[in-house]
Amino acid sequence: MREGNLLKRINSPADLKKLNIKQLPALCDEIRETLIAAVSENGGHLASNLGVVELTVAMHFVFDCPRDEIVFDVGHQSYTHKLLTGRQHRFDTLRKENGLSGFPRPTESEYDTFIAGHSSTSISAAFGISRANHYKMKDDYVIAVIGDGALTGGMAYEALNNAGKAGSKLIVILNDNKMSISKNVGAIARYLAVIRSKPSYYAIKNRFIGFFGKIPFIGAGIKSGLERLKRGLKNMMYTSNMFEDMGFSYLGPVDGHDLGKLTTILATAKKMKRPAFVHINTVKGKGYSFAEQNPKQFHGVPAFDIETGDPFCDSQDNFSYQMGQYLCSLAEEDDRICAITAAMTEGTGLQSFKNYFKDRFYDVGIAEEHAVTFACGMSIKGMVPVFAVYSSFLQRGYDQILHDAAIQKCKIVLAVDRAGIVGEDGETHQGVFDAAFLNTIPGVTVFSPANYQELFLSLHLAVYDVDGVAAVRYPRGAQPVLPADYQPSESPFSLYGSRSGTAIITYGRLFAHACEAARELEEKDTPVQIVKLNRIKPLPDSLFDMLMDYDKLFFFEEGIRSGGIAEHTAAKLLQKGYKGSYHITAIDDRFIPQAPSDVILRRFKLDARGMTEVILESKSR
Amino acid sequence: MREGNLLKRINSPADLKKLNIKQLPALCDEIRETLIAAVSENGGHLASNLGVVELTVAMHFVFDCPRDEIVFDVGHQSYTHKLLTGRQHRFDTLRKENGLSGFPRPTESEYDTFIAGHSSTSISAAFGISRANHYKMKDDYVIAVIGDGALTGGMAYEALNNAGKAGSKLIVILNDNKMSISKNVGAIARYLAVIRSKPSYYAIKNRFIGFFGKIPFIGAGIKSGLERLKRGLKNMMYTSNMFEDMGFSYLGPVDGHDLGKLTTILATAKKMKRPAFVHINTVKGKGYSFAEQNPKQFHGVPAFDIETGDPFCDSQDNFSYQMGQYLCSLAEEDDRICAITAAMTEGTGLQSFKNYFKDRFYDVGIAEEHAVTFACGMSIKGMVPVFAVYSSFLQRGYDQILHDAAIQKCKIVLAVDRAGIVGEDGETHQGVFDAAFLNTIPGVTVFSPANYQELFLSLHLAVYDVDGVAAVRYPRGAQPVLPADYQPSESPFSLYGSRSGTAIITYGRLFAHACEAARELEEKDTPVQIVKLNRIKPLPDSLFDMLMDYDKLFFFEEGIRSGGIAEHTAAKLLQKGYKGSYHITAIDDRFIPQAPSDVILRRFKLDARGMTEVILESKSR
Repeated sequence: MREGNLLKRINSPADLKKLNIKQLPALCDEIRETLIAAVSENGGHLASNLGVVELTVAMHFVFDCPRDEIVFDVGHQSYTHKLLTGRQHRFDTLRKENGLSGFPRPTESEYDTFIAGHSSTSISAAFGISRANHYKMKDDYVIAVIGDGALTGGMAYEALNNAGKAGSKLIVILNDNKMSISKNVGAIARYLAVIRSKPSYYAIKNRFIGFFGKIPFIGAGIKSGLERLKRGLKNMMYTSNMFEDMGFSYLGPVDGHDLGKLTTILATAKKMKRPAFVHINTVKGKGYSFAEQNPKQFHGVPAFDIETGDPFCDSQDNFSYQMGQYLCSLAEEDDRICAITAAMTEGTGLQSFKNYFKDRFYDVGIAEEHAVTFACGMSIKGMVPVFAVYSSFLQRGYDQILHDAAIQKCKIVLAVDRAGIVGEDGETHQGVFDAAFLNTIPGVTVFSPANYQELFLSLHLAVYDVDGVAAVRYPRGAQPVLPADYQPSESPFSLYGSRSGTAIITYGRLFAHACEAARELEEKDTPVQIVKLNRIKPLPDSLFDMLMDYDKLFFFEEGIRSGGIAEHTAAKLLQKGYKGSYHITAIDDRFIPQAPSDVILRRFKLDARGMTEVILESKSR
Repeated sequence: MREGNLLKRINSPADLKKLNIKQLPALCDEIRETLIAAVSENGGHLASNLGVVELTVAMHFVFDCPRDEIVFDVGHQSYTHKLLTGRQHRFDTLRKENGLSGFPRPTESEYDTFIAGHSSTSISAAFGISRANHYKMKDDYVIAVIGDGALTGGMAYEALNNAGKAGSKLIVILNDNKMSISKNVGAIARYLAVIRSKPSYYAIKNRFIGFFGKIPFIGAGIKSGLERLKRGLKNMMYTSNMFEDMGFSYLGPVDGHDLGKLTTILATAKKMKRPAFVHINTVKGKGYSFAEQNPKQFHGVPAFDIETGDPFCDSQDNFSYQMGQYLCSLAEEDDRICAITAAMTEGTGLQSFKNYFKDRFYDVGIAEEHAVTFACGMSIKGMVPVFAVYSSFLQRGYDQILHDAAIQKCKIVLAVDRAGIVGEDGETHQGVFDAAFLNTIPGVTVFSPANYQELFLSLHLAVYDVDGVAAVRYPRGAQPVLPADYQPSESPFSLYGSRSGTAIITYGRLFAHACEAARELEEKDTPVQIVKLNRIKPLPDSLFDMLMDYDKLFFFEEGIRSGGIAEHTAAKLLQKGYKGSYHITAIDDRFIPQAPSDVILRRFKLDARGMTEVILESKSR
């Protein structure tokens, strides 16, 4: 069989099983080529997917999906799974509108067991499925695939702590790539490093697995300051293993790129009398040199040049990078300022801060809950912690923002990245809830800048002018172009455009669309004024007083409608006896699948054309 | 010195330090008497506070607060701390309006370092404080006091995982009372049980602590089905200790009621060169026989008779108990129904379910995140999991409800207990956010019954009529009295009272107040109709169509105003062109301190009298 023809024959895992195990490495090569080609075109998660090619092939070779079920944690490593389960003919649609999701999506395929996108959920879900199988007298396997990064999330422990009730058909596969998204820090990463370094102990203990070659001891990048903790952990590893102690049969570690060892260990796991915990060592970016050398850069990537590995976009022209740089400039002058990330140093633009202010930088692991309360602890003693986090992931910290930060008025700053539509990552990552959920929390201040200059202004206000919790929310990507005559302002809201009885109310990057809409409408003899909210919580009474004077108000909100700022504004106006017309355009009570951000804004009539249409339609009625 | 006079002399920890260590046991006796007397009058957390009398005395004897800082996890064990830090003269005001909080409250005293009320936050906060001390060049101690129950919460692990960066002045004290709120389940509880059983190993290892008597091996109530896991854990304990392996100097376990041993071990912890983890064994309810025998019943209690231990109220006349009983009746007929609690079996009324349907009952530990996603896993395979949880604690599951349940439309039922004002537990426990935060999540259905009959009806609808996530929210305590002629209905809303141009809109138990207000208003020639929402999300269009016909609408909401149902309704009406008057009475943008629920409802004009006043006032304007 000529290379290049194997993958085409795999329409389902049943086809995979027809191959000889010796053909699998060639299949893996084909898969890697397909992955690199698709991601270089469409963008996506490359390094993580390249790391699990052999693991995924081995899983489908050994297990019988969809009878057996695989739950991928976070889900950004499910591309090979998609290729092997009848979706390769659509793989060029990856992350495109109406195309394949970049994450498992049960509505897309019966092989996608459980949704994923946020971290550390797989063991909980798999345990639930295994319990349901128990009640239904089914003896199918349920396999959770979780990375070492996701294992730093507390929810994974809650699940491990509880999964002792699982039967023997639950298998947890630890995909240990030694760094997850950013470099893992903390006890767990060190713990795993020690396990990795001592395979022979487990080889003896799990005598069925034979001999494994020694794996080099710990990535060089482990923080030296943490070395002493590592030594403490070592003692444990010589003698015991936490996962066994939690009730699992521990198997591993094995080389996650050796198909013979992988299929053997998975077959062994099936025979265990307790739930099994299988430890696999993989290399992020495996098989594509640029990604292997710089897996963090190739975690989530835009389209790039395969030959050079260079992305087709400017890595500094985005809100994340600009936030990080401005934070450095503040930290230079003010030694109270600290930065916190939950395993997203690069994604949130904190690389420079990490380099220049090492002692004031914290990567706490994928631990948004801890991050918020840790920040509170620092703040009550006079530090000014800034937690940079994606809007969608901040959902994990809702209770901590409310209970630990807001009740006792801790001065912490939330730098809420990727607020609004995020585009291709789809429904699990849309940042359309933060405005609404922060709006429910008393005493929180929320800024929503439209460009970099406003971002800096908002951050400055958040650090120096706000008591209590301050959030600064900004979108994914680059700043929009604003009119040359628009001046950022420190006031809670700004007026732009000529006086009119009709106003657009909006905030964040939609302001750019509103300006364009206003120009178009002006040409169509429908002048509108723009009321731009710089601070979306709290809204000042003077805003509502002013809004009372308009005949027609059109609120455009890049966020969920229910509980959003547009509804809040409506309620204030109605109570004041507003008699004009009021129209909300926002994200309706639904989740938003993947598509380019501009397409989604278009669909919801949140772009300039949509705004123009909405206003003209209303006029014609 | 006569017994009974020691406590009176303690106006601050400095006074405590003047006592001879031999006087401390007598002091502890006085403290216990004071605690039992106060809680029997005011209600509160008894068993947990009785368990830490000696520990708290020892802490203040050894450390120098407020320079050194104690962070109590959950905080319902801080009464002795309050008695010793200048608050004993006000202790009879415990949990009363304007009185002492039942939880640490920094605004109440400089000795209360950090707010608490929700679980598993203390290590995060203490680590943050210790980092701030590092920057400020302060070498004061920061002490986190955390129970074995709180250690099942994932956030505690996130913090332990990260706390390796802490300096040597961080001390974590594990108050191991072997059961926390409900009986602990899972690997951690078993792990601790094994440590407890082998004190001599650590006595040797930590050679400074001398000899400890053997503690009986594990409470008898440990689930037999989990015994095999326990055996696995044992291996670990003979040889290693997870907390040491995470970078802490482990000390203990010691008898938490022996003041000599306690002061010795705490003094030793101060000298450690790494952060210290001090393991203390305590007995919940220590010193009050009824509480020792039944610590779960004496966890959070209403006022009770000291002589008999009997509470001054009916333990079955409350929504929690009624929910649990009805769930049993459903489970009897339908074997898909499972019940989940996060360490609140008794509090959420699931005791009967646990007894009768042992195989379908799950206490997952204090792990609301895991609980939700675990439920999702069961649901996608056809089970119907019901997660019973306090409204305030459900905040922890916001992301999981949104991301794991709602996006993939999992059919799970949330039985949201203590929704609305909870009264004496104060700001950390008020259930006033669930309506607003659930309202932001697409596709969720929320019922808000007013009495037991409606509770049953709502639960039935949630289980049999709703696709996707269904929440049934109900208040703390007993059902209110509704008019005899009122009939519960399955429709999303009901009308009650005579036709009028003025309507009260409300939901939940406020409906009883609305009925009373309507009667009073009728007598004052101000007839109002009541629009009662049975289902607060989604609200049907027919509701808004109908509301358009009223001249005056008064929405009374026992929940936060921002993002609440009243604002949502206002926005719908304003967009439809409603020209009448609209008035919202709700919880303003603030947190609500402790007071009896009726007093708080009164203050916010959410009771019958308040409703009457609001409507009459508006009329006179």
